[in-house]
Amino acid sequence: MGNVIVIDWGTSHLRAYLCQLSTKNQLQLIDTKFALGVTKCNKKFEAELFNCIDDWVKKFGKLPIRMTGQIGSSIGWKETSYLPCPVSPDEIANACLEFICRGHDISIVPGVSCQFEDKHHDVMRGEELQVLGWLNLEPNHQQGKYLVCLPGTHTKWVMVENGKIILFKTAMTGELFDLLNNQSVLIQTPSSDFNESSFEQGAKYTLESELGNFSHGVFSVRSNQLFGKLSQEEASSYLSGLLIGSDVRAAINASEWDIHSLNNVIIIGADHLSNCFSTALSMQNIPSTICDAKLSTISGFSKLNQPLSIS
Amino acid sequence: MGNVIVIDWGTSHLRAYLCQLSTKNQLQLIDTKFALGVTKCNKKFEAELFNCIDDWVKKFGKLPIRMTGQIGSSIGWKETSYLPCPVSPDEIANACLEFICRGHDISIVPGVSCQFEDKHHDVMRGEELQVLGWLNLEPNHQQGKYLVCLPGTHTKWVMVENGKIILFKTAMTGELFDLLNNQSVLIQTPSSDFNESSFEQGAKYTLESELGNFSHGVFSVRSNQLFGKLSQEEASSYLSGLLIGSDVRAAINASEWDIHSLNNVIIIGADHLSNCFSTALSMQNIPSTICDAKLSTISGFSKLNQPLSIS
Repeated sequence: MGNVIVIDWGTSHLRAYLCQLSTKNQLQLIDTKFALGVTKCNKKFEAELFNCIDDWVKKFGKLPIRMTGQIGSSIGWKETSYLPCPVSPDEIANACLEFICRGHDISIVPGVSCQFEDKHHDVMRGEELQVLGWLNLEPNHQQGKYLVCLPGTHTKWVMVENGKIILFKTAMTGELFDLLNNQSVLIQTPSSDFNESSFEQGAKYTLESELGNFSHGVFSVRSNQLFGKLSQEEASSYLSGLLIGSDVRAAINASEWDIHSLNNVIIIGADHLSNCFSTALSMQNIPSTICDAKLSTISGFSKLNQPLSIS
Repeated sequence: MGNVIVIDWGTSHLRAYLCQLSTKNQLQLIDTKFALGVTKCNKKFEAELFNCIDDWVKKFGKLPIRMTGQIGSSIGWKETSYLPCPVSPDEIANACLEFICRGHDISIVPGVSCQFEDKHHDVMRGEELQVLGWLNLEPNHQQGKYLVCLPGTHTKWVMVENGKIILFKTAMTGELFDLLNNQSVLIQTPSSDFNESSFEQGAKYTLESELGNFSHGVFSVRSNQLFGKLSQEEASSYLSGLLIGSDVRAAINASEWDIHSLNNVIIIGADHLSNCFSTALSMQNIPSTICDAKLSTISGFSKLNQPLSIS
């Protein structure tokens, strides 16, 4: 078979994977490259892409390129639609936007939307492919009900049932952390040293809180420092705990699913963030399983194997 | 009697009031000047102050100067203590920090702290003087129980009983709005045109929400725009509604007081913000009375009339 380039092109980062397509239509990772995200490359998407994959093109010629993420949004290269939930892998595969650029056959995966009982909508781009990838990794995931948590700039909590995405909710936890950690009165000098016990102290506060402790509780990052209960170095971890605790608590109390009826929560994300969410869930006695984000993305492109099959 | 300069010197702004002390130890406003806040003037506090009041000094000579706000904090000019609640006007007056600068007799009002049952602390500087000022405006405020809401960069909700400050809670609503309105994915182009119905739409969402709708609801600012339910111009007002609704809901559900047992909520703040909080409270059938922030500050300094009396 041949090679394929699959790309997760999000707001902040472009992650490109050179893969080999096996006889069973599964992608095997060969090489990885990184470049600038959608909001970072000044709208010069074509140049950013071909600059990133230049080595591979020189070596292998015109390869098919499959992309997911914000690159398909209104602020990206080519806008793809949002498919309404419930949505299956086949429907996503069939709605990919295809075009030719510099002789390469390129396709962009659509986003997914859902609507709640209160009429509000939610949207995602990129995470749906990781969920499909996780479904593809083991045959027994195709049946049953699962809650998948994908932490990142925005956390997505995704309900999956019998191989379809049913519903999901977005929390702005990562973006809020960045803003509050770097630009608010709460933190004078952000620390990148993670302090587990400060994280748990923050998570405990919001996990076990009465109603409304986010609004009235986040200021404790500052007051705890003023009263010697938290050092400057611990404050960032405590803030992270507060925010992730609040996010997890909202997921535990969400009316859209019954978290306690599920065996465990699946977490797909970067290692450190995934561990933080797993810790917060375990503080409320909810088990979780962490899956590798890169493997899930590549497996998701394997799942969409129809448009990936090379003529 | 003589003239006195009273100053509310907060994080973002310095507001200076030239006042005349009446025979009854009440301050009458004569003139107003503005200058840079504590975090804006590069630690050159003395220069900023005397530059601001230069005209008054030339005209009236060495006047007493009374200051409140972040100027007395660890990031200000001279650090004053936090007095623990419950605290009375007399205790605040007696704990003012006094010093001489360029021949002027200067004093800085201390801050106030409180501790909750869960051992967390809270702190404020400047708002306590506005609360004392409101107490001073009418004799009947001296008796009974009141909840005072002071919106601003941080909202303070202050419980007052029989003329003393008993307890208070901080919400970071204003700072969160600034960060999310100007620097997040939620708003592409911030609008300063207030849209009442978008504000109410946002406030309704969080006021009537299930648990956790802050974490999982604030993303609706973006999804509502994607689905044509909110224009770019309306998005800032909707976000403001979401945040103020969440703040008000937390105050309504706070275990530290029973908001429904009070006649009304007293709001002391800038006109527009005060109206927003009043609207959100009225959406939950809670009446409120708005008091002018400048009058409250000046009246607060009048209340501390012992140290204000001029020898």
